[in-house]
Amino acid sequence: MVIRAVVKRFYSNSFMRIVDIIQRKRDGHELTNKQIVTLLDSYLEGTVPDYQVSAFLMAVYFRGMTDAELKTFTDCMMRSGDLVEFHGVNKFLVDKHSTGGVGDKTTIALAPLLAAFDIGTAKLSGKGLGHTGGTIDKLEAIPGFTFPETRDELVKNVNETGIGIMGYSENIVPLDKRLYSLRDVTATVSSIPLIASSIMSKKLAVYADGIMLDVKVGAGAFMKNEEDARLLAKTMLGIGKSFDRKMVVHLTNMDQPLGLAVGNSLEVIEAIETLKGNGPEDFTQLILHLTGTALFLNGRAETIEAGTEMADRMISTEEPLEKMRMFIRSCGGDAGIVDDYSRIPVATNTLDVLSKESGYVSQIEAEEIGKAAMILGAGRPTKESVIDHSVGLVLNKKVGDKVKAGEKLATLYYTGDEHLQQASEKTVKAFSFSIEPVPASPVLLDTIQEL
Amino acid sequence: MVIRAVVKRFYSNSFMRIVDIIQRKRDGHELTNKQIVTLLDSYLEGTVPDYQVSAFLMAVYFRGMTDAELKTFTDCMMRSGDLVEFHGVNKFLVDKHSTGGVGDKTTIALAPLLAAFDIGTAKLSGKGLGHTGGTIDKLEAIPGFTFPETRDELVKNVNETGIGIMGYSENIVPLDKRLYSLRDVTATVSSIPLIASSIMSKKLAVYADGIMLDVKVGAGAFMKNEEDARLLAKTMLGIGKSFDRKMVVHLTNMDQPLGLAVGNSLEVIEAIETLKGNGPEDFTQLILHLTGTALFLNGRAETIEAGTEMADRMISTEEPLEKMRMFIRSCGGDAGIVDDYSRIPVATNTLDVLSKESGYVSQIEAEEIGKAAMILGAGRPTKESVIDHSVGLVLNKKVGDKVKAGEKLATLYYTGDEHLQQASEKTVKAFSFSIEPVPASPVLLDTIQEL
Repeated sequence: MVIRAVVKRFYSNSFMRIVDIIQRKRDGHELTNKQIVTLLDSYLEGTVPDYQVSAFLMAVYFRGMTDAELKTFTDCMMRSGDLVEFHGVNKFLVDKHSTGGVGDKTTIALAPLLAAFDIGTAKLSGKGLGHTGGTIDKLEAIPGFTFPETRDELVKNVNETGIGIMGYSENIVPLDKRLYSLRDVTATVSSIPLIASSIMSKKLAVYADGIMLDVKVGAGAFMKNEEDARLLAKTMLGIGKSFDRKMVVHLTNMDQPLGLAVGNSLEVIEAIETLKGNGPEDFTQLILHLTGTALFLNGRAETIEAGTEMADRMISTEEPLEKMRMFIRSCGGDAGIVDDYSRIPVATNTLDVLSKESGYVSQIEAEEIGKAAMILGAGRPTKESVIDHSVGLVLNKKVGDKVKAGEKLATLYYTGDEHLQQASEKTVKAFSFSIEPVPASPVLLDTIQEL
Repeated sequence: MVIRAVVKRFYSNSFMRIVDIIQRKRDGHELTNKQIVTLLDSYLEGTVPDYQVSAFLMAVYFRGMTDAELKTFTDCMMRSGDLVEFHGVNKFLVDKHSTGGVGDKTTIALAPLLAAFDIGTAKLSGKGLGHTGGTIDKLEAIPGFTFPETRDELVKNVNETGIGIMGYSENIVPLDKRLYSLRDVTATVSSIPLIASSIMSKKLAVYADGIMLDVKVGAGAFMKNEEDARLLAKTMLGIGKSFDRKMVVHLTNMDQPLGLAVGNSLEVIEAIETLKGNGPEDFTQLILHLTGTALFLNGRAETIEAGTEMADRMISTEEPLEKMRMFIRSCGGDAGIVDDYSRIPVATNTLDVLSKESGYVSQIEAEEIGKAAMILGAGRPTKESVIDHSVGLVLNKKVGDKVKAGEKLATLYYTGDEHLQQASEKTVKAFSFSIEPVPASPVLLDTIQEL
């Protein structure tokens, strides 16, 4: 199942000075495949020091990369570690990836809806760190739930239920980890070609028939404005096309958390409610659109819009909920939670967070909300932290809503009260108000399918 | 005499992330003194790694530095090592520095001419490496000549003869050595603010009342065109002025070697001939102009032109030659060489290099000529090489001269003939010809005194 990367050595016989490669990039010339391969392979081998690569990365920050450079760069990254394929899967596989969000329970609701269309989800997921939660943590809130430990098990689950999710254990794109650590301390993170190749190398290293990427836009997101986000989207799409992958990129709004619930059990419940047709409007809309996109990528719908209508019809049936039950059961979890939320742990202590101001909600800082939930115990301040699945918060107001002073902004669910005050303050602080009416903000800003 | 640099620690209490400093520079914001001091001090102490500094240097390559940044940057560089002053010197001290050339015997002719005006030269000089010769090596061609070993001796020589020259032994601007090594392998050498601060920090670390810098321009020089050279000149002048130094920068032509002689004894003889009024036109013109500049810096001439006229009158007297004799004598050398060149070793084997082409000389690549002389033994291919003072070459043609095929381009002076063929070929190769007449190229392109 794993294709150990064969690093190509075509060129290593010929002498090439790394400083000349840096200089060519500095001067805005296009690098050859040979030059990119030499630089990255040598770095991986340890014969090129960090200080040359950081100078190169800064030159890339200023000069960018051409399409041809990006393809080779991404290819080198991808092949630096294991390539994962899911041989034996009998379905069209879709991979949905977002650049990270607060309250992002998308996979939990999307996978059963896709499964209802016989579209498979085979995913390696990460644990959450800091203010963003991980899908792994959320599903572990379900009593008895455990993840497959081998890819054979995962493939069996995908074939039987349509859904296979397991934790990251593979050596996926180790070069990205090294480059990212270096970029992080050399002010070269926010370069669109570097971000694009980092994300795409990981997407390409784990096989999927169709790729759906979600680029968050807004003050709290990596991409502060729509122009940059669109450029990143097109850059990633270009890379995907150069590897002959079916791919769509969505730009989504980060001016507030997705849906209302933040916290592991609370988000699982919200995901199930959404499959029952009772989900928050923004989250429901996103799930339907993503399903429509998957149907389009699979060739089952002529357009994303047509696919979205198919999804809309499907969500009113019992089928997605039944897929959810099958998925939970396949992982040893209590499928009864789908119909009885008292079987999933939710903290019984609650505190209503009240508004001090009157006005229209203009923004809800997702990062602050994520931190509030983390402080209550829903997330991990450090890698070693143990999380409490039962805690979190549920928003009562969203962007565009009218609020009077003293009205409820959110409800906190907590077990211990030592950090309660702090979490409450962070929640209040997350809200911005306008005296003028504010339109409800659309979750979906744009859908990009073409270069 | 040495002021050990006291590295300032005003700011080190406050927390400042190096990555934020790099990012500010990357984004084109002006850095504060505090930020520059933090970066450079921490690098010197070893708490900031090379990979952060190389990313910073690349950001400087793209963004440049403001005048305020340059002043602080240069100050930090200067104070990274010893500061040398010549206490006890009873004269106005001038430091003349060139960015490196072939056949550059300027100091040897200039110092006695300045001394005739009671303007002092107190200089730490380097040995030559590669295709450029060093003043130290040239003077060592004089039988018996040894350099002072202490600065007390040097000051005594300056006071008695007007001229004191010794080898570099101090710990001058060690930060420049570290940064230069890093720039050399990260394609960040050719940044005008970095070049300017590198040169100026070294000039400022060794005291002189007036500074004359010579920026070479041309295909063989660091600065390929006059526009860049002028920008470098103005940048250095700006730094000099911010340190309240009297300073003039000359742009000089590097489309051919300076004068006719290349090689240690041959250059000493040419320098003496120039003081006798028989020097090559370009070299004589440069020496007179530099002396005029020094007189202007010293306030003895109203303008450089007026100073140059004073120099022109002085050179026709015996005074500069007498200063030359005194200088040689003060260093234990045989002053008789001034009047009898048979007392200085010159190789007796000669080979005339003949032209294969007819036309007008359009360029003489200084680097090729320097390498030809080095191959004959006049220079050091490596730091450990022993040089032969007696060998070298004398050009017979300069830019603008008409040449017929078979006519003599230069005469090689050699001891062993093992590399003679190679030296001869390099000499021929150095010459470019034009079928159209070429004007004799002026040595002095511009004199920059004002920002």
